[in-house]
Amino acid sequence: MLDFSIKPVSKEKRESIQQKIDTKTKPLGALGQLEKLALQIACIQNTETPRLQNPHIAVFAADHGIAQEGVSAYPSEVTAQMVLNFVRGGAAINAFCRQHNIALSVIDAGVNFDFQSHTSVISQKTAFGTKNIAHSPAMTLAECQWHLQKGAEWVQQLCQDTQCNIIGLGEMGIGNTSASALLMHHFTKIDLHDCIGKGTGLNETQLIHKQKVLTRAYHLHQPTLESANWLTALATLGGYEIVQMCGAMLQAAQNQLLILIDGFIASVALLVACQVSIHVKDYAVFCHQSAERGHEALLQYLKAEPLLRLNLRLGEGTGCALAYPLLESAVIFLNEMATFEQAGVSNITNEVMLG
Amino acid sequence: MLDFSIKPVSKEKRESIQQKIDTKTKPLGALGQLEKLALQIACIQNTETPRLQNPHIAVFAADHGIAQEGVSAYPSEVTAQMVLNFVRGGAAINAFCRQHNIALSVIDAGVNFDFQSHTSVISQKTAFGTKNIAHSPAMTLAECQWHLQKGAEWVQQLCQDTQCNIIGLGEMGIGNTSASALLMHHFTKIDLHDCIGKGTGLNETQLIHKQKVLTRAYHLHQPTLESANWLTALATLGGYEIVQMCGAMLQAAQNQLLILIDGFIASVALLVACQVSIHVKDYAVFCHQSAERGHEALLQYLKAEPLLRLNLRLGEGTGCALAYPLLESAVIFLNEMATFEQAGVSNITNEVMLG
Repeated sequence: MLDFSIKPVSKEKRESIQQKIDTKTKPLGALGQLEKLALQIACIQNTETPRLQNPHIAVFAADHGIAQEGVSAYPSEVTAQMVLNFVRGGAAINAFCRQHNIALSVIDAGVNFDFQSHTSVISQKTAFGTKNIAHSPAMTLAECQWHLQKGAEWVQQLCQDTQCNIIGLGEMGIGNTSASALLMHHFTKIDLHDCIGKGTGLNETQLIHKQKVLTRAYHLHQPTLESANWLTALATLGGYEIVQMCGAMLQAAQNQLLILIDGFIASVALLVACQVSIHVKDYAVFCHQSAERGHEALLQYLKAEPLLRLNLRLGEGTGCALAYPLLESAVIFLNEMATFEQAGVSNITNEVMLG
Repeated sequence: MLDFSIKPVSKEKRESIQQKIDTKTKPLGALGQLEKLALQIACIQNTETPRLQNPHIAVFAADHGIAQEGVSAYPSEVTAQMVLNFVRGGAAINAFCRQHNIALSVIDAGVNFDFQSHTSVISQKTAFGTKNIAHSPAMTLAECQWHLQKGAEWVQQLCQDTQCNIIGLGEMGIGNTSASALLMHHFTKIDLHDCIGKGTGLNETQLIHKQKVLTRAYHLHQPTLESANWLTALATLGGYEIVQMCGAMLQAAQNQLLILIDGFIASVALLVACQVSIHVKDYAVFCHQSAERGHEALLQYLKAEPLLRLNLRLGEGTGCALAYPLLESAVIFLNEMATFEQAGVSNITNEVMLG
């Protein structure tokens, strides 16, 4: 258990892939970020002709005890209501997944609701929400390990059942920007206030309240956290959906899938996964820089260049779905564009000009 | 001739469209820029259920006399070679149009090549490239009017032949960042050096040379330009593809199409079109902020929020094609997402929280 074997992305064909990119009929580097993306995808798949197969997005949902402290603009009930919206196909993520033929799974990692009659919700839970981290650790160490494992097993099963080689991870959980802010602060040491944002839409007064609640919460756990390893920190401050996403990312990296990272919460899950193996990041594509305060700083910390900056603050994996066509474009230009030679286009380098 | 009648975008249904957006199952404004885009598209089409029909991208190509001054990293021959690459389907814009089922037209507005044997190139030209603006005006006033008219007529024909309601405008023309920089400087009064970039890939020394050439060119024409109207300025500093794009934009706005603006050169064409009618901008979607110096400042001047910032510097309409799925997403969420009421999700506003 919790024994991941994550290889660095192969560099074997890096040079020949880069050469293929550079012979396409465009000025060197003129496709900007798409060129970096094509290189990353092709290196992960260790081929000059990469393909995206059976793209899949999973939304991990769970509730958070800290929502009782009034740190969210919406009540906890919305988590379950939105899960039902996902399975009925009415949410933003459903619309965008249909648009791009992306399969969608909805995973109950610990929502405060019994979805037994909804067989399309994948149930892997130990509780109906975490404990309130303003007063106690979110979960036990054993629980945390169980949820990491469940996230990983789900990915493993997906790989066995389908030919999926690209997975997006999204979430739904009222209160989860609070848990994420605390985890971000703990692992990056960035000032806690800079990690705390307005979530789904707090006003300024409510934001100040959220800052106070989280500052007290962090102080409460500080004695434990000072000597804690990553697992203890995750169990103390985390949320079930964050833990399962973290496990899913570790397994996805081990299976050498492309991993689409959605917004703030997914980026925090990746930050935690990087404590286990820094190589996880090499498999990750940062899809969207969200409007949530903290996300820009976190992406900078991770040296990540997001594909989109659309001011979304929704989660659900929407950033992954919206960015997906750009990944397709990266693969398509690499596979389909003519070379200078094929097209009979002069490829004059700068040196000969202005002669 | 040159008599465009461009209406402001209708505000008749603006409120009901915004209300429809706000009842969707997401926090208010959580889809960020996609919400603004949905509102714009629905207002242009004056309906709460907009549709994108028969999307079309046109690449206007032409050569520039100023390329003789060594202001580009590639020789003029590349313009014609790339046009042939477009009609053979080997360029980036071909790959991205195929990806998104966007029709593509290639228009020879003044390339230094005879495409007679290539019937798929639409020929509307008066010369094999503009005069060298380092020494003389780019074209005559009569020519400029002819090219404006031709761009407009092409759009009018497209609207008659298809049910197209969304058009993207791209370009190819070695030397056209030089003409664009001069036009931008003339119409915005932004310092000329801040309008001049590296184009397809000049090095620092070459950039300084380009700055010197363009500064001299602007000084040469300054006596004419001081008292010139927009048409004279366009004829003096422009390029044939820029003039035709400008005419196409004016006609597209008159026909109330959505207009996809690609990168730096297309934005300059729009800037010129705005001299005729400021309402053109209301029909425009700014698809990509390019890496070309000057483009960011120009977008700020136009108060435009680009959808993508992928560091592309290719033109061809590639930014339009890459952004197209985001426009689809905007329409899809507006038409398909469930409302709070339909989904039975609590839509608690901030006021009742923290009570």
